[in-house]
Amino acid sequence: MIRFDSDYMEGAHPAVMEALVRNNTVQTPGYGEDEFCERAAALIRERCAMPSAAVHFLVGGTQTNRTVIVSLLRPHQGVVSADSGHIAVHETGAIENGGHKVLPLPPKEGKISGRDVEALCRAHFSDASFEHMVQPGMVYISNPTEIGTVYTRAELQELYAACRERGLPLYIDGARLGCALVSSVCDYTLAEMARLCDVFTIGGTKLGALFGEAVVFTDPSLARDFRYFIKQNGGMLAKGRLLGIQFEALMSGGLYEDIARHEVDLAMRLRAGLKDKGWDFLVDSPTNQQFPILPESVLDTLSGDFGFSRWQSMGGGMTAVRFCTGWAAAEEQIDALLARIPEKQP
Amino acid sequence: MIRFDSDYMEGAHPAVMEALVRNNTVQTPGYGEDEFCERAAALIRERCAMPSAAVHFLVGGTQTNRTVIVSLLRPHQGVVSADSGHIAVHETGAIENGGHKVLPLPPKEGKISGRDVEALCRAHFSDASFEHMVQPGMVYISNPTEIGTVYTRAELQELYAACRERGLPLYIDGARLGCALVSSVCDYTLAEMARLCDVFTIGGTKLGALFGEAVVFTDPSLARDFRYFIKQNGGMLAKGRLLGIQFEALMSGGLYEDIARHEVDLAMRLRAGLKDKGWDFLVDSPTNQQFPILPESVLDTLSGDFGFSRWQSMGGGMTAVRFCTGWAAAEEQIDALLARIPEKQP
Amino acid sequence: MIRFDSDYMEGAHPAVMEALVRNNTVQTPGYGEDEFCERAAALIRERCAMPSAAVHFLVGGTQTNRTVIVSLLRPHQGVVSADSGHIAVHETGAIENGGHKVLPLPPKEGKISGRDVEALCRAHFSDASFEHMVQPGMVYISNPTEIGTVYTRAELQELYAACRERGLPLYIDGARLGCALVSSVCDYTLAEMARLCDVFTIGGTKLGALFGEAVVFTDPSLARDFRYFIKQNGGMLAKGRLLGIQFEALMSGGLYEDIARHEVDLAMRLRAGLKDKGWDFLVDSPTNQQFPILPESVLDTLSGDFGFSRWQSMGGGMTAVRFCTGWAAAEEQIDALLARIPEKQP
Amino acid sequence: MIRFDSDYMEGAHPAVMEALVRNNTVQTPGYGEDEFCERAAALIRERCAMPSAAVHFLVGGTQTNRTVIVSLLRPHQGVVSADSGHIAVHETGAIENGGHKVLPLPPKEGKISGRDVEALCRAHFSDASFEHMVQPGMVYISNPTEIGTVYTRAELQELYAACRERGLPLYIDGARLGCALVSSVCDYTLAEMARLCDVFTIGGTKLGALFGEAVVFTDPSLARDFRYFIKQNGGMLAKGRLLGIQFEALMSGGLYEDIARHEVDLAMRLRAGLKDKGWDFLVDSPTNQQFPILPESVLDTLSGDFGFSRWQSMGGGMTAVRFCTGWAAAEEQIDALLARIPEKQP
Repeated sequence: MIRFDSDYMEGAHPAVMEALVRNNTVQTPGYGEDEFCERAAALIRERCAMPSAAVHFLVGGTQTNRTVIVSLLRPHQGVVSADSGHIAVHETGAIENGGHKVLPLPPKEGKISGRDVEALCRAHFSDASFEHMVQPGMVYISNPTEIGTVYTRAELQELYAACRERGLPLYIDGARLGCALVSSVCDYTLAEMARLCDVFTIGGTKLGALFGEAVVFTDPSLARDFRYFIKQNGGMLAKGRLLGIQFEALMSGGLYEDIARHEVDLAMRLRAGLKDKGWDFLVDSPTNQQFPILPESVLDTLSGDFGFSRWQSMGGGMTAVRFCTGWAAAEEQIDALLARIPEKQP
Repeated sequence: MIRFDSDYMEGAHPAVMEALVRNNTVQTPGYGEDEFCERAAALIRERCAMPSAAVHFLVGGTQTNRTVIVSLLRPHQGVVSADSGHIAVHETGAIENGGHKVLPLPPKEGKISGRDVEALCRAHFSDASFEHMVQPGMVYISNPTEIGTVYTRAELQELYAACRERGLPLYIDGARLGCALVSSVCDYTLAEMARLCDVFTIGGTKLGALFGEAVVFTDPSLARDFRYFIKQNGGMLAKGRLLGIQFEALMSGGLYEDIARHEVDLAMRLRAGLKDKGWDFLVDSPTNQQFPILPESVLDTLSGDFGFSRWQSMGGGMTAVRFCTGWAAAEEQIDALLARIPEKQP
Repeated sequence: MIRFDSDYMEGAHPAVMEALVRNNTVQTPGYGEDEFCERAAALIRERCAMPSAAVHFLVGGTQTNRTVIVSLLRPHQGVVSADSGHIAVHETGAIENGGHKVLPLPPKEGKISGRDVEALCRAHFSDASFEHMVQPGMVYISNPTEIGTVYTRAELQELYAACRERGLPLYIDGARLGCALVSSVCDYTLAEMARLCDVFTIGGTKLGALFGEAVVFTDPSLARDFRYFIKQNGGMLAKGRLLGIQFEALMSGGLYEDIARHEVDLAMRLRAGLKDKGWDFLVDSPTNQQFPILPESVLDTLSGDFGFSRWQSMGGGMTAVRFCTGWAAAEEQIDALLARIPEKQP
Repeated sequence: MIRFDSDYMEGAHPAVMEALVRNNTVQTPGYGEDEFCERAAALIRERCAMPSAAVHFLVGGTQTNRTVIVSLLRPHQGVVSADSGHIAVHETGAIENGGHKVLPLPPKEGKISGRDVEALCRAHFSDASFEHMVQPGMVYISNPTEIGTVYTRAELQELYAACRERGLPLYIDGARLGCALVSSVCDYTLAEMARLCDVFTIGGTKLGALFGEAVVFTDPSLARDFRYFIKQNGGMLAKGRLLGIQFEALMSGGLYEDIARHEVDLAMRLRAGLKDKGWDFLVDSPTNQQFPILPESVLDTLSGDFGFSRWQSMGGGMTAVRFCTGWAAAEEQIDALLARIPEKQP
């Protein structure tokens, strides 16, 4: 069985694992107040060219989204999101459990625009009963999106301008951020993206760490008392050093980008192979998630030997599936998969 | 600097670390639905002699307490706890944030009794305005307690009988459970304790794991839909295997007890040494937390070289401090500490 | 200015007001434990032919919806509702503030069907990641709906069968229930409707009371501890007698139906008048809310002298507006309005 | 049966009732945006000599406390209160249900001091684990307190100074505020008290209204978006005019003070009568709640004919009970009660 179900099918990249082993017996204070976390945060601030950014480390993605979002909203406010956004669909209502409505926008290729946000705000504030409705309080996007697409610089600029116009913090969920940054369509650096939002995360789990998400508040005043929130939401790791050690490894010597590039390169190899065979895709994804549309008959022959997710039935016996490449994916695995998928019959 | 601040100052026990490294590249499904978690759960059910127990793994203690408690209460109910209980004091109001009041009882040596619980319930239900007050909905204890004391079998029996009489689930927070079980005062086994409560945890973080708490529902009907709760509360680890691998290692070949015994043995060495020197203790703890009462002048000379926590000022220049021994504590460290503490002047 | 903005533009029906004045100085216990509430509840149980139903009185609609819904759901569950449902749109996220997602279904003429509910449940439970999504936990409908339409007996039967099949309580928000029951399309009695759901409300505010909603749990076991919930959610009126006095008046001698009939008759008079003049309607409403589609030029001439709500722009200078008739509406008011609306030009 | 159980045993003061009847058929906009609410708010601002104060009207006390408190706190913050405070004891955990811990202080005669608050804050912020504990976020007091005592000007000044020093809004629950203001020990006016806090309420329910609490934000910036909060918390009355009409009546021509004076005068008559007979009191209350300590044998003879609340067992067969006088209490009722209570035997 070769698993392309997702990018968290194995443990950590060997360099990350090695750092954990090497530092295993060093004694440090708990709860993220150790030198590893400090150094990892410093590396991130440096990479963002933002000496004043506030950097925190949490364990998982849902936990991070929940914690960031409840820390930024007042109770009568909701978070604007694509209706396909992770917080809107796949976090068991963690945001609502935290008291807030997710205000859904219909996305285009997984993305929402400043124009969408402005229209939603205008509709809210021009309604005579606006106080009877949830007030838009912030904007959430994921980059890459849940279907692998990547915001362009122009799109981020337009979106962030709309957010600032309305006083809404913009939060970018970067669970797979590295894959966006190294993708062929990305026309900005990490430091440039940091200037186009108020908070973002750098995901570790899906890019070579055992676990871990770095949260970067580009405006440190938004991070006031954030450690209380981490604790209250169950995200403060006793051995917080584990997050520092891993992010120090990832942020040193370009490892994070190397892993991202590896994931995306293998996904592109898969994409090219499938395109050569004539198959169509649900969406044109430049990152490590690929969504080819394949016949059920082919999927049946694959399913004993390869792991993947059924994403969406397309009718006529065709299904869009997701193949996802992690840090440990290998060329031979891609080739083995391609070898089992026939050419599309015209 | 030798740190006795707490039992999470280092990484994992070498055997746990080795298991993580050894299985690093094995591919598994995510979110705890892997073979490691399955085997670890089976080992725990076996150790509890409870084939039908429901076992789940979460990352941290606050997260676990919050998730278990919100899954068991209805909104108008609160959780009864010693006023010194971890949930009452040191979880940044995670329980209240989840919507529930912690109903405090004054403990004796960190422990509460069935009689206390019954009195609280009687007071509630006999009050004319009972519907204007939070209804007791479950009972929380920690074992060992926050000050290292251990419930006896008779105490647990009396408490559990009171809980069952009132229909209140009893939840035991076993963040340091191993240390209770191996302590000289403990007169029950894990399997026996499992029959004296409805839910309990087996803490990994403080007993040799990088992180991880196993939750054991002795009545599996209480665990209905619990995985939804784990996800909603941000405790579902993408690489859930990490919890399975660690608990499989801990639950195999007596490692968990060996680590607990090591921690407690070293704590007893420290206790004996301090007693020999004539010092008193805040409480007589048979586990890996020791609370000697020392003069500020002595503490000042220690504080550059040894880590510990100031627990409570006792007046007259005396302070109760906490020394805590983890899996990596060594006899030489204890002896080095003892060497720096003078005999008490009569 | 003649206000058709809504059905809460005046105080109470004279008979209700008279009862309040008459009983003003009678002394009673507080918090709804008085003889008036008891008698009003008995009248409702009798009208429902349900001797075992649990009846409670709350002040307002949002409060009632919030209190009922949080009492029925566990934290990981959401409430299924038409996306146009009052709880989904016009309660400032009270349900989400209580921790629950509203799971929206696209309605037909404001109504949802058992088939819709079954499809949503099947999609949920057949998804591989179902535990990452909010579980459907109950179903909410309003009758009449937010656009005045009324469920038929067959529709309620089909919906309730689907709910029971899935174990989902069905809750009917009857803020304007009287208007549904007296409408020409209604083919069931109150007692019959009570057998087609698990909880419903009989709205007072919009049918002649100063305020007040009666909640009827047809299965009293669902009402366990409900008074705690009323108190916790701020709905327990100190002088609870006010609710009992009003509902006793409304439920005696057919007053509730008389008021409903008056409201609907006047709305029908308006509808007939507008139809005669050739105007179209957004929806064919048989109750006290009417949604004609009128030109902006006409609305401009009306807006100084008549109150109404702009509901939806229809394009081409046409707008659907809402006229709503309350207990105090008078034929002359309807005729005055009609006199100011010209015939539609062909 | 003559009820002294509480001050909400009857309906409204005749003048309030008369205003409701007189304005019953006037048409107004809903949800508190009517001319009555406007005039009532203007009268309150005038009485407070605070032209910029933000004034809102809600229905009940628990609802008001919950709504104000959740609007002022961030999720990691708690509200400091006497452990006997209404929010700490008698609101079914509405504050915790809203996500916040009530941080209890032991009161003296029902009151807390600035020194208490400062000590609690110092303890919090000087603790090494402060981020693991709930942060004090605001201070709640009731005036008069739950046992009828009244803050002096000096006490309020000292408390407010401590609050401002720590940046904590001070909120005064004035459910029976009128009784404090007219009491013999009160050395400030309403306008003066308004300058010694950030938010306070003027209770109507217990001072002659059918229901209703006016919330006064002395700093209007704290009231930002408060109407959203009222709606979300179920406190926005459709016929909001009812609150405006009642408060306009109460705030006109000194009616509110007249009612308060009546209530307090009758309570003083009762107090004097009981003192003459030699009875002791739980506390020396200068307002409309009196807490004499009486033998069970006497209480038994009273309980068929008089309503009162058993407050606290004092041992030795003695019980402190509460007698409460409302707007409708009459001298003859007091005298009838006194006639039935014997002199204390020496």
